[in-house]
Amino acid sequence: MRFGNFNDTSREYVINTPRTPHPWINYLGTDGFFSLISNTAGGYSFYRDARLRRLTRYRYNDVPQDSNGRYIYIQERALSSGASLGKLKGEPWNPGWKPTKTELDFYECRHGLGRTTIIGEKNGLRATVRYLVPIGTNAELQELVLENTSKEEKAVCIHSFVEFCLWNALDDFTNFQRNLSTGQVEVEGSAIYHVTEYRERRNHYAFFWTDAAIAGFDSDRDAFIGRDGDFTRPAAVLQGASWNSIADGWSPVASHRIEWTLQPGEKKRAVFMLGYIENPQHAKWEKPGIVNKEKARTLQNRFSDPGAFQAAWDELTRFWDEKLSHFSISSGDEKLDRMANIWNQYQCVVTYNMARSASYFESGIGRGIGFRDTCQDMLGFVHLMPEKARERLFDVASTQFPDGGAYHQFQPLTKRGNADIGGNFNDDPLWLIIGVAGYLKETGDWDFLKESVPFDNNPANTASLFEHLKRSFHHVTNNLGPHGLPLIGRADWNDCLNLNCFSTDPNDSFQTSTNKDGKTAESILIAQMFLYAAPDYIEICKRLGDHEEARAAETAARTMETAILAHGWDGLWFLRAYDDASRKVGSAECEDGKIFIETQGFGAMALVGNDRGYPKQALDSVAKHLDTPHGIVILDPPYKEYHLELGEVSSYPPGYKENGGIFCHNNPWVMIGEVRIGRPDRAFEYWKKIAPAYREEISELHRMEPYVYSQMIAGKGSRRHGEAKNSWLTGTAAWNFVALSQWIVGVRPAFDGLIIEPRLPSHVKHAVIQRYFRGAHYHITVENRKNDGPIQLSVNGSLQAGTMVRAASPGSTVQILVTVG
Amino acid sequence: MRFGNFNDTSREYVINTPRTPHPWINYLGTDGFFSLISNTAGGYSFYRDARLRRLTRYRYNDVPQDSNGRYIYIQERALSSGASLGKLKGEPWNPGWKPTKTELDFYECRHGLGRTTIIGEKNGLRATVRYLVPIGTNAELQELVLENTSKEEKAVCIHSFVEFCLWNALDDFTNFQRNLSTGQVEVEGSAIYHVTEYRERRNHYAFFWTDAAIAGFDSDRDAFIGRDGDFTRPAAVLQGASWNSIADGWSPVASHRIEWTLQPGEKKRAVFMLGYIENPQHAKWEKPGIVNKEKARTLQNRFSDPGAFQAAWDELTRFWDEKLSHFSISSGDEKLDRMANIWNQYQCVVTYNMARSASYFESGIGRGIGFRDTCQDMLGFVHLMPEKARERLFDVASTQFPDGGAYHQFQPLTKRGNADIGGNFNDDPLWLIIGVAGYLKETGDWDFLKESVPFDNNPANTASLFEHLKRSFHHVTNNLGPHGLPLIGRADWNDCLNLNCFSTDPNDSFQTSTNKDGKTAESILIAQMFLYAAPDYIEICKRLGDHEEARAAETAARTMETAILAHGWDGLWFLRAYDDASRKVGSAECEDGKIFIETQGFGAMALVGNDRGYPKQALDSVAKHLDTPHGIVILDPPYKEYHLELGEVSSYPPGYKENGGIFCHNNPWVMIGEVRIGRPDRAFEYWKKIAPAYREEISELHRMEPYVYSQMIAGKGSRRHGEAKNSWLTGTAAWNFVALSQWIVGVRPAFDGLIIEPRLPSHVKHAVIQRYFRGAHYHITVENRKNDGPIQLSVNGSLQAGTMVRAASPGSTVQILVTVG
Repeated sequence: MRFGNFNDTSREYVINTPRTPHPWINYLGTDGFFSLISNTAGGYSFYRDARLRRLTRYRYNDVPQDSNGRYIYIQERALSSGASLGKLKGEPWNPGWKPTKTELDFYECRHGLGRTTIIGEKNGLRATVRYLVPIGTNAELQELVLENTSKEEKAVCIHSFVEFCLWNALDDFTNFQRNLSTGQVEVEGSAIYHVTEYRERRNHYAFFWTDAAIAGFDSDRDAFIGRDGDFTRPAAVLQGASWNSIADGWSPVASHRIEWTLQPGEKKRAVFMLGYIENPQHAKWEKPGIVNKEKARTLQNRFSDPGAFQAAWDELTRFWDEKLSHFSISSGDEKLDRMANIWNQYQCVVTYNMARSASYFESGIGRGIGFRDTCQDMLGFVHLMPEKARERLFDVASTQFPDGGAYHQFQPLTKRGNADIGGNFNDDPLWLIIGVAGYLKETGDWDFLKESVPFDNNPANTASLFEHLKRSFHHVTNNLGPHGLPLIGRADWNDCLNLNCFSTDPNDSFQTSTNKDGKTAESILIAQMFLYAAPDYIEICKRLGDHEEARAAETAARTMETAILAHGWDGLWFLRAYDDASRKVGSAECEDGKIFIETQGFGAMALVGNDRGYPKQALDSVAKHLDTPHGIVILDPPYKEYHLELGEVSSYPPGYKENGGIFCHNNPWVMIGEVRIGRPDRAFEYWKKIAPAYREEISELHRMEPYVYSQMIAGKGSRRHGEAKNSWLTGTAAWNFVALSQWIVGVRPAFDGLIIEPRLPSHVKHAVIQRYFRGAHYHITVENRKNDGPIQLSVNGSLQAGTMVRAASPGSTVQILVTVG
Repeated sequence: MRFGNFNDTSREYVINTPRTPHPWINYLGTDGFFSLISNTAGGYSFYRDARLRRLTRYRYNDVPQDSNGRYIYIQERALSSGASLGKLKGEPWNPGWKPTKTELDFYECRHGLGRTTIIGEKNGLRATVRYLVPIGTNAELQELVLENTSKEEKAVCIHSFVEFCLWNALDDFTNFQRNLSTGQVEVEGSAIYHVTEYRERRNHYAFFWTDAAIAGFDSDRDAFIGRDGDFTRPAAVLQGASWNSIADGWSPVASHRIEWTLQPGEKKRAVFMLGYIENPQHAKWEKPGIVNKEKARTLQNRFSDPGAFQAAWDELTRFWDEKLSHFSISSGDEKLDRMANIWNQYQCVVTYNMARSASYFESGIGRGIGFRDTCQDMLGFVHLMPEKARERLFDVASTQFPDGGAYHQFQPLTKRGNADIGGNFNDDPLWLIIGVAGYLKETGDWDFLKESVPFDNNPANTASLFEHLKRSFHHVTNNLGPHGLPLIGRADWNDCLNLNCFSTDPNDSFQTSTNKDGKTAESILIAQMFLYAAPDYIEICKRLGDHEEARAAETAARTMETAILAHGWDGLWFLRAYDDASRKVGSAECEDGKIFIETQGFGAMALVGNDRGYPKQALDSVAKHLDTPHGIVILDPPYKEYHLELGEVSSYPPGYKENGGIFCHNNPWVMIGEVRIGRPDRAFEYWKKIAPAYREEISELHRMEPYVYSQMIAGKGSRRHGEAKNSWLTGTAAWNFVALSQWIVGVRPAFDGLIIEPRLPSHVKHAVIQRYFRGAHYHITVENRKNDGPIQLSVNGSLQAGTMVRAASPGSTVQILVTVG
């Protein structure tokens, strides 16, 4: 069952009912100011840091769910006779249904790229509300167009509404003994300024403004909703009134009241703006105790121009036109194309921007930017905004320790490593190599390796980025366990496989508790990652002229492969790890958790033991033991009991999350492996199972947005097999885009150019791919005769040997014809 | 305007409308299991630690407000014809109005001591629900009695409801990527077991059970409320149905459905129980994967007995009868009596139990037990439960550092000092002396001083409690500033006067940021506290035979008084402090914050500079500059701007909290001072302004409960002068009880007995006081002729000199007649 449909032309998902199985959201903003917005206009805004600079209040896990947002209440009145306003008629309603939940005659929500449109019609009044954050502007704009579609003149009372958060989102809902006394506002004209704590250490404020003439306003929540009131039927709306209330402690909100009459067919328009302003310390005040509003007035003036909103809208269109021109495909399979061309790339950008901080599952207060996460996100993002990728990689590398280890997270505002979480996740260092290699292949920016980068943010201890990569590489070789395999530390990619934790206290964090010395438990995944990263690392060494290091790395890689072959193979699949007692994890001899996906996927990607047929055998075992109709589960069987020696992985109920859920993040590792061993149709089938556009038809079961990946789909061991969770912010987007664009579509950046090896599914006979790469444009036509057959390239009309097309000069266009099979 | 009335006989506040200006709450529980319950049955339960062991979910600052709780939904049906249930009739309603907010024909909430009764009647059905936590039992019981008051047979569909919290209250509303996958329940008969995380590291579970026959149940929130549903009109209630849903991830709840028919005049009864059970590790499971429910079944069996609920109710009555017999007065002023005999003492107990952790303003996740707070709370609590006071004082002293300083807070579960907050609040050590002295005077338990108590919880470093007091005393003398006055450290009693903080970053905590070396800023309050504590300390030293220390302490006190007289007097009042630049704080020469209450109150209590008339002059300045119709503000004028050198005190909007609010906590210091200088009527007038029973008539303005003190009432500098905030958990209760019982009523424990010095207000001509002290009973009759006149005591019929009555032998009764004036 679907709840909407894709519009590939407008690049939107068009939702046709407010009663989606879960709030389906979108993100507004491209730089510092971001908003989350659901299909019923729920959500919130923040500036840069979702915890420390939260602008509006949002209650997670609320009842009724998702009923905090930016809302427009519309209430019809009788036409006035004389000076006073007419009596209210009928029920108040919202264009997005919530929070009044008054039934609408028509409803539509169009989530597009960085913008959302919500249309609601009721009793001859049609409201179209467009939302966006203009590029380069610290404000969310809401444009309301209200049309009288009836044959009679109508009078309407409109209330706008937002609720302010007192900046620090965690403090905002914990520290009431202070916070209920601090709220302050100023009101000037139609602008309601939220200035809580501005009088002390803050130099920023927010405002909510409209270009429309207002009949009144409210800034005190209790005044607006009434005692014991709620957002469903606020007192102000119910009474068609406003009290010009000035918030003073308690909860500052902002609501305008607008009174309009509309002739039949007439449209009226209002723009609302939630803006964020910072002032320098010396210019905080206009006069004593009065906030300096100059910058806010400038912004308000700009959007008082009737064309300004549309101009911002058009600029955003152009922004995405340009970004998405870097990669696109026309394959004849519309779902493949819409994922590849629009939604997967869009999600990669959002994930980069949010860095796991703020979704409808990530509350925005929990964590910093992940070292490992960011390096992976890079892989799906670097072709879109390489300059931002470079900046982020620099920040990430700056939190590395001199020994090559790394803080597991760093804070977005300070860019410093998060000491509370610390380090010792032993896969982290290798992700830096993989991320930097991805960046180099996309950009050819070899100078980046010579850049001076601090260790642990200490400007007195810096080294070249290349030296950072060396430390990364040797952090693995310097931390080997009893089998010559890498010690796992607190965890590797699977944060929940905690082999040194041994926690019995429910108040411990599994990720930060360590009760073992860490000298025994080993990760076969890290060993495979080492082999996966080694060829690129060796090539980098050679190109920088460090042949001694290249030779040492080659030796280290051979030694590591020998160790895996000797101790990492279980007979029919790769082992996952050795625990603190050197017992096997992920072996046929285990009672539960006999087989894990990660080492089958990474082992196949890295072609470990290829001459012995291990990758193919491992992937056959995946198909046999882990595959389901909804994707590949992370392990099987799920752990029935808590295992002290395994940690969080065994803490989840069977079939959920790391205990046997379908982790969409590592399904693509298997897909890539399948392509590498020559089974492209299998790869595609795996992808279809988890790709949201293909799951759209089962939205009732899947529940999450059908336009973005979720982190997890409940596995076969659960009661709710097929139900997705944790949508939007997940490394899933990046790895699926890598699998899809680089291995299935098969256009893959290399150090010297583009490798063109399409392994499209059999049903795609003909495809055209557009790729913008290092300033040149590649127009690639694929004839897909037999998708596991040999590949022949013709470049600008000339046949060429091999599949690597050297980077063309910037500005040029390269025509490529590819014949497969 | 009132919203109810006191019933002094039943010791209840009887609320007659659910539309109170704010939720008016009560506390259930005397030991480990506690519940908060509002007048509309909102609130939550926890076991020992409101953060780490939260049993039910509560959303603070919610909209609609206070709509999470234990709810009973009642919905009438047509009488059934045949086997199937009759159709639903009318609206569903709750006895406590919320969450349906269906208008009731009758409503009443009776908040008593550790128990609450809510009565709602609608359309010929009268529901009486009684709530309590039985003594010694880890469960909240709810007894519903439903009576058909009509003349017709009636059929009703009843839904019970609670929503479980996933144990850790902070994690519960921040970590959704995990928590929405972990929820688990088991259901057996009419018991719904909340077993989330029991399969891993928890050995505790909760359950919600009823003794009634059930027609169905639900344990999944979305099933119960319906998609996009809410607690106002849950789908199950609207449909008169239940789905026997089993929660699996998302949000576990518990709801029973009961179908009853009632003849005219018939009553039916059901008991519901929210229980908490811990199992030993070896007995966690009944069989593989099935939770061991033996203890729960035992508890359920106990309350299946129809008399068990009433027995628990009666036991609680006896418990409070006994406690409140320790002190009572009959004065003829009913407000005075109800505060002194019931509500002030009750609040002292609740404050002791909660230790500032969980109220409708304290979210239960923010903090541990305060060192200073607990020592003050002791003063109002020790006469009720001296054995608990001893235990808590031991815990407090165990977090002291070897140098006499102290952790500012410690954690209730671990009893360890909170390293995140740290120490260096330089008044803390003196509070230990004041608290221990209070305990000694009440109990005569001198052996306590010889008890071996660790420093910083280190069993390898212990000393006698007396030695701890010594370290406390000399922590002051070892930390003196340029004027010979005590260095203030991070803050003294006023946590917001941060003279070494100098913070410009809004993300800093004012309490933990220190940017100065702390070698300059001095506190006159600590100096006065030193003089206040010195006589008791000296006496303790003498009685323990340490005359050398006694002499040293006398010298130190004289030196300190000299320093105050030289540098702590501003001409018309006491200075408050010297800042980091040695500038005066709280001086006529300051632009704002010219005069502070703390040093006037403590200075007068300690009679500092009495021969120069300073106490009287200081209190006259209080009357002139700080007194208002709603109490005495903390300082005046409020700070208009943020002062980097003063910290948080200047961060609040003028008139709120520490920036010019009425801190009910230190008003009693002024009252005690007024008694000491001979102006008892003034003392009483000050008390009346803030005492809740006297403010009952202005509940519309005051807003908080009229039966307990609030921390603050908005001061004259604010827009909402007279509005209270932060009710219940505040040291206010203890200090007011000290002022009232020891100085106004004038029965004051001393080291050797009871001092009897009534300074009752003039309008009280005759009073009888009952006091239980060290096992003996004192029956005190007061003739109050002229309340500032001389006092004459007759003890057991014999006139005696002085006002100190030596402690009588346990079991004896002492008859005292006091003539005043």
